[in-house]
Amino acid sequence: MSNNQIEDLIYIFSKLPGLGLRSARRIVLHLLKNKDLRMNLLIQSLIETYQTTHNCKVCNNIDVEEICKICSDSARDTTSLVIVENVSDLWAIERSKIFKGKYHILGGALSAGKGISPDDLGLPLLLKRIKDCDIKEIIIATNSNLDGQTTAFFITEYLRDFDIKISRLASGIPIGGELEYLDEGTVSAAFNLRQPF
Amino acid sequence: MSNNQIEDLIYIFSKLPGLGLRSARRIVLHLLKNKDLRMNLLIQSLIETYQTTHNCKVCNNIDVEEICKICSDSARDTTSLVIVENVSDLWAIERSKIFKGKYHILGGALSAGKGISPDDLGLPLLLKRIKDCDIKEIIIATNSNLDGQTTAFFITEYLRDFDIKISRLASGIPIGGELEYLDEGTVSAAFNLRQPF
Repeated sequence: MSNNQIEDLIYIFSKLPGLGLRSARRIVLHLLKNKDLRMNLLIQSLIETYQTTHNCKVCNNIDVEEICKICSDSARDTTSLVIVENVSDLWAIERSKIFKGKYHILGGALSAGKGISPDDLGLPLLLKRIKDCDIKEIIIATNSNLDGQTTAFFITEYLRDFDIKISRLASGIPIGGELEYLDEGTVSAAFNLRQPF
Repeated sequence: MSNNQIEDLIYIFSKLPGLGLRSARRIVLHLLKNKDLRMNLLIQSLIETYQTTHNCKVCNNIDVEEICKICSDSARDTTSLVIVENVSDLWAIERSKIFKGKYHILGGALSAGKGISPDDLGLPLLLKRIKDCDIKEIIIATNSNLDGQTTAFFITEYLRDFDIKISRLASGIPIGGELEYLDEGTVSAAFNLRQPF
């Protein structure tokens, strides 16, 4: 290692998800090797993204517009709402091309451990949105872990006075998954939710 | 995916060594999730590194000084020189703490395929350095592949008229390596270079 700036940069890269010290070192050297092209391009793109993106005022998605492309897309069904924890979950559902309605991003899940309360997740905002818009169906797509399921139950309780069809994503065997390698919880869930042929 | 700036940034990240589209997406979302802290920190560190680093005028190492820390370190042996292909090779040797002399970084290896000639590697500069300084030993630490070995042979020929002890790194079984999984070339080399007990 030759100096502090480079070491700092390597450290920052090493803290990004999926990276460690070794991969960060490789990336930084790759950038330094053609500084004016590679490093410059990354800096410009980061600055541009930093300056132009913000959270959508309606659904919390990240976009360059005040109201994100999904919220402002008039072709999408406004009566159907998917509730997800994070932007990455929205992206995952969008990639599947299965859903043509709108989204609401909580920004996390309820967690006693991390001290995340209903107010932190902006649930009052969600309530207002449901009241204002004519939402008929809500699909809760929080993660299938403890916090995600707690959040799903809480939201269901929270919205019980509304005349809305509420469902959540099915649990089961992933496509291509092998029973042998799956945990008991998943196998039990798939068993309980078995579908008639 | 919501907009072009974010997609561009994901694409740029995905082209970094060791990353793909999936890991790039994860990193960009991680940065966007706490833009003012994480993204800002990365941008500042990249800009600082971009602005302050350059190649050492003597050995080609990357540093914030005109003459890098290794070249300007008077405690290091000036008569002994290790020749490496890239900065990453210098870092690898420095991590091993085995060598206390100076370095010369070629910036690559001779390659007919990639059209890299002796002039591209700054060999005249190396020659000048060897003439000017009183170098008594050269250790060639180019990679152990075709281009690296070609480069090693070329340099040896190039320096044959000088009264300098020239050696190159030993080939053999990596520490912790198992013969079963090593290629024939490595096993042959280790056999030929076997050491008396």
